[in-house]
Amino acid sequence: MAESGCVTCGSTDQKMISADEALQIVLSVAQQLPSVTVPLHQALGKVLAQDIRAPDPLPPYPASIKDGYAVVASDGPGEYPVITESRAGNDGVGVTVTPGTVAYVTTGGPIPDGADAVVQVEDTEQVKASSVESKRVRILVQTRKGVDIRPVGCDIQKDALVLKSGERIGASEVGLLATVGVTMVKVQPTPTIAVLSTGDELVEPTTGSLSRGQIRDSNCAMLLAAATQQQCTVLDLGIVGDDKEELERVLDSAFSSGINILLTSGGVSMGDKDFVRPLLEKKGTAHFNKVCMKPGKPLTFAEIYFNQTENVPVNKVLAFGLPGNPVSCLVCFHLFVVPAIRHLAGWANPHLTRVQARLQQPIKTDPVRPEFHHATIRWEINDGSGNPGFVAESTGHQMSSRLLSMKSANALLELPATGRVISAGSSISATIISDLSDLGGTTLRKAALSSDSSSTTALHKSTLSEMTADGAQDVQFKVAILTVSDTVASGGGPDRSGPRAVSVVNSSSEKLGGAKVVSTAVVSDDVGKIKDVLQRWSDIDKMDLILTLGGTGFTPGDVTPEATKELIEKETPGLLYVMMQESLKVRLSLKSTLISIQSS
Amino acid sequence: MAESGCVTCGSTDQKMISADEALQIVLSVAQQLPSVTVPLHQALGKVLAQDIRAPDPLPPYPASIKDGYAVVASDGPGEYPVITESRAGNDGVGVTVTPGTVAYVTTGGPIPDGADAVVQVEDTEQVKASSVESKRVRILVQTRKGVDIRPVGCDIQKDALVLKSGERIGASEVGLLATVGVTMVKVQPTPTIAVLSTGDELVEPTTGSLSRGQIRDSNCAMLLAAATQQQCTVLDLGIVGDDKEELERVLDSAFSSGINILLTSGGVSMGDKDFVRPLLEKKGTAHFNKVCMKPGKPLTFAEIYFNQTENVPVNKVLAFGLPGNPVSCLVCFHLFVVPAIRHLAGWANPHLTRVQARLQQPIKTDPVRPEFHHATIRWEINDGSGNPGFVAESTGHQMSSRLLSMKSANALLELPATGRVISAGSSISATIISDLSDLGGTTLRKAALSSDSSSTTALHKSTLSEMTADGAQDVQFKVAILTVSDTVASGGGPDRSGPRAVSVVNSSSEKLGGAKVVSTAVVSDDVGKIKDVLQRWSDIDKMDLILTLGGTGFTPGDVTPEATKELIEKETPGLLYVMMQESLKVRLSLKSTLISIQSS
Repeated sequence: MAESGCVTCGSTDQKMISADEALQIVLSVAQQLPSVTVPLHQALGKVLAQDIRAPDPLPPYPASIKDGYAVVASDGPGEYPVITESRAGNDGVGVTVTPGTVAYVTTGGPIPDGADAVVQVEDTEQVKASSVESKRVRILVQTRKGVDIRPVGCDIQKDALVLKSGERIGASEVGLLATVGVTMVKVQPTPTIAVLSTGDELVEPTTGSLSRGQIRDSNCAMLLAAATQQQCTVLDLGIVGDDKEELERVLDSAFSSGINILLTSGGVSMGDKDFVRPLLEKKGTAHFNKVCMKPGKPLTFAEIYFNQTENVPVNKVLAFGLPGNPVSCLVCFHLFVVPAIRHLAGWANPHLTRVQARLQQPIKTDPVRPEFHHATIRWEINDGSGNPGFVAESTGHQMSSRLLSMKSANALLELPATGRVISAGSSISATIISDLSDLGGTTLRKAALSSDSSSTTALHKSTLSEMTADGAQDVQFKVAILTVSDTVASGGGPDRSGPRAVSVVNSSSEKLGGAKVVSTAVVSDDVGKIKDVLQRWSDIDKMDLILTLGGTGFTPGDVTPEATKELIEKETPGLLYVMMQESLKVRLSLKSTLISIQSS
Repeated sequence: MAESGCVTCGSTDQKMISADEALQIVLSVAQQLPSVTVPLHQALGKVLAQDIRAPDPLPPYPASIKDGYAVVASDGPGEYPVITESRAGNDGVGVTVTPGTVAYVTTGGPIPDGADAVVQVEDTEQVKASSVESKRVRILVQTRKGVDIRPVGCDIQKDALVLKSGERIGASEVGLLATVGVTMVKVQPTPTIAVLSTGDELVEPTTGSLSRGQIRDSNCAMLLAAATQQQCTVLDLGIVGDDKEELERVLDSAFSSGINILLTSGGVSMGDKDFVRPLLEKKGTAHFNKVCMKPGKPLTFAEIYFNQTENVPVNKVLAFGLPGNPVSCLVCFHLFVVPAIRHLAGWANPHLTRVQARLQQPIKTDPVRPEFHHATIRWEINDGSGNPGFVAESTGHQMSSRLLSMKSANALLELPATGRVISAGSSISATIISDLSDLGGTTLRKAALSSDSSSTTALHKSTLSEMTADGAQDVQFKVAILTVSDTVASGGGPDRSGPRAVSVVNSSSEKLGGAKVVSTAVVSDDVGKIKDVLQRWSDIDKMDLILTLGGTGFTPGDVTPEATKELIEKETPGLLYVMMQESLKVRLSLKSTLISIQSS
């Protein structure tokens, strides 16, 4: 029994531990399951338990990269007889291409002996055959030795280590295993999990009309589904009422069936009929009973040894007494059971994926317990900080009985126990609890456009007030001037600096090698808007010089340098230096003026 | 047949279309499958095809939130007889709590009539019973009406819409369905997919020793695995050689078995034995044959109608003739087949998740075709830009036959066809092709601490020597001074610059608008330690100005600017310039002195 107390909330309850401590205990108790050998298609998603080496090189023969003709490169362009057709397969075996002859080859097919390059069919011309026996072809290009041929072992060398023990097997890895001829694979099995709900109030979900005091059990179906999502084999133990003997009988039977993990829900509170905790303590070693977190405080974790028969080694079961409230129950499953499952299944890093996300709305934190707050996160090109990132939206009121708060949640926000409000826009740690594959996206091109500053096609049209200088066609260098100002953009005042800059540039046109202002715009202090204009001017309108005015101060609204930096490919500190030196001259003289005014 | 040509590379090949166009065609042809009704546990992962309303409220009775005593709140503290024990279940049915009496209740159990609040067991004391029949309890606190009671329908109101048609069913949603008694669910089925490999060179993966011209087929096993990962039912058609009649026979048999999608690989190039494309064109409508992308150029997509019998409606099959090279094959599966599967399965947004990631190393792009480059992305607290974000690492040489380049890849980087090098640190669109659940993470607390600068709770205590200025309460601007020095921190020498800086600031307090040093500290040249202090001073102690001294030289140990840059929100090159200009004046005068000493 851990007696360390809670370092997080400083609780005097010696039996309360932090979520982090609880997870460490679970992972220290969990042990990787013994490996098993399964057919290739059952290995998907599991962790490999053996090193895999290639028994033969790939390709095992020099192979053509194109459909075309295998040639002797030094022969050069000209008309040649086609002596054989070496398609994929063994058509070309035993044939030799001698100088002055060629052989037809298809993609992936073997290159006949003697040939040292391939000319693709697009670079050849069919020649009308003079006789039935001899096909001829005209090679139109000069090629080089080795062109369009994959030499033996160029993809995988013989005896190369293609997969290492400990790697997880996805579709690509299945392809690799098939290629090297491994059809029975040694892997880490995923655990078998039994799920049980306890409580006199519970009835099966199939119950149509509820009597007074009854609710339908949601936890059993929910936990079975959650364990299935983790690729576990599941065992449904159903509902057991608040009956100590019946509970013990069901658990013993589950233990003896060879399960690795037992999940119960309910019966771990302070009630006098909460039998799960005492029973788990009796059957094995209980490591903790309370975790300082919201939701999910009552959580029992025990390690149980069950000796099936005299001749079989002792079977160890990890038992989690999860809270009865469905929200608490599933949160505890994610935070503690999923890492345990992964550890048993041999994952090198069993922890859940954690990212940072910006809050879409302010959230009040609990003053005592750190909270795991259900949220839906999504990826945004601009997460509010001007950068791409995750944005998190709370799923609403988080009462632990409120199943609806879990709907569509794909992350748990980790809120510190300060009792204060975390403001919208703050960056918060978020633990991912779904696979994020359904965040969705846009079509390929749209996304590439909005994100890739090097893309040179269609950008969003901004509402710019554009102007074209007279004689724009004679312009040698196109200059654009952008005024960044909330005041001007909202019509709250005139643009003083913009027109001044235009006049400075245009009046010095000759000195500036024919530079002329061909476009101006005013935007508010907004990173997105500034970037849109800059991007359009540089990529679409191909400006030679863009000058921005304003937005370089210290207030949070001053973002012009930030917006510019996100787009530029090169910084020029030298120019910055010269500009500042010049501007300091002005400021210093202004300051002198002010001092002289004050002193006068 | 699409005849639009490629807008991306401007190819004159009228049959070549962009990847985006190809995807749009696929999605416009794909149609949602008719819905089916399945048992609850089979609904997991599928899209709901009906609205779900609650037949009864949850809780269906006023329920206790705690283990404790149901009371009449106005009774107040005192000793009361316990008239019944209303545990979860129907123990309390028919009993009424009258003023002056209480009833024992457990978490989730019904509140007996008459009671209007619950006092948790921790706020009560057992009273030794005077007689056997009457249990008594001492209530220690005054409560209020409604406390620790969930009223009827507080979680879910009767007739509330709990799930909408179109929502995807995860573990939480299974729990919700169970709660409202839905055990047979109308869902969108996932498609049935048949997979076939073609080519005379292919042999089964079980083949131990390869003859000349043979390679083991990897695509069939790989595509079956990939389709399984998308929750599809799969049909393994095996390998068919380059034999037109055999191919047609196998395909006809697959079509008549009621599949929704056919995947073939190989046989879609320019070779004279590439029979797949002509056959698909013969059986139905081919929409495109070439897509402008790397890898994967040859890709046939056709729509095939197959009328099983006279009385059954026509069955539509989406046929994808995928390239034979395994890399091209799987990339095309991800980009085109996965969205098609999702569309058939009723997903509102069938597109793959797309994020931005920063390149860890420079990548050369193809000059002609946009490339989908295999990479492993991971989440970093600092992606290189100072913000949290994804970092992408290429899986190496991307030759389309090189299966090893797909190993461990979880994303496809979208590289534009510029022929230029994209520099390390650039932000690139990345399409996610795995579930990201195995990105891993750290333990709960460590991550929260190292990542969340807005968190105001427990930060590591540093070994700070803190000092509070006299009259700190009168301070208008709080200044903190940090000396960064291995020597001083280890006690190897006195802190000379720290006290000097304190005296400079405090003696100029009036000129500096009332600024006063309220805290100083010394730390070693360690990024983590420096950051800890800076973070604490800015976030917890709310300093107005922090000055650091030292650690700005050229040795590897000099890390103060690096540590600072990881925390700051804004850089001010102007101030840097002025500071340098001032410091150079001092150095220059020193230099003059040195010169004069040398010359004397």
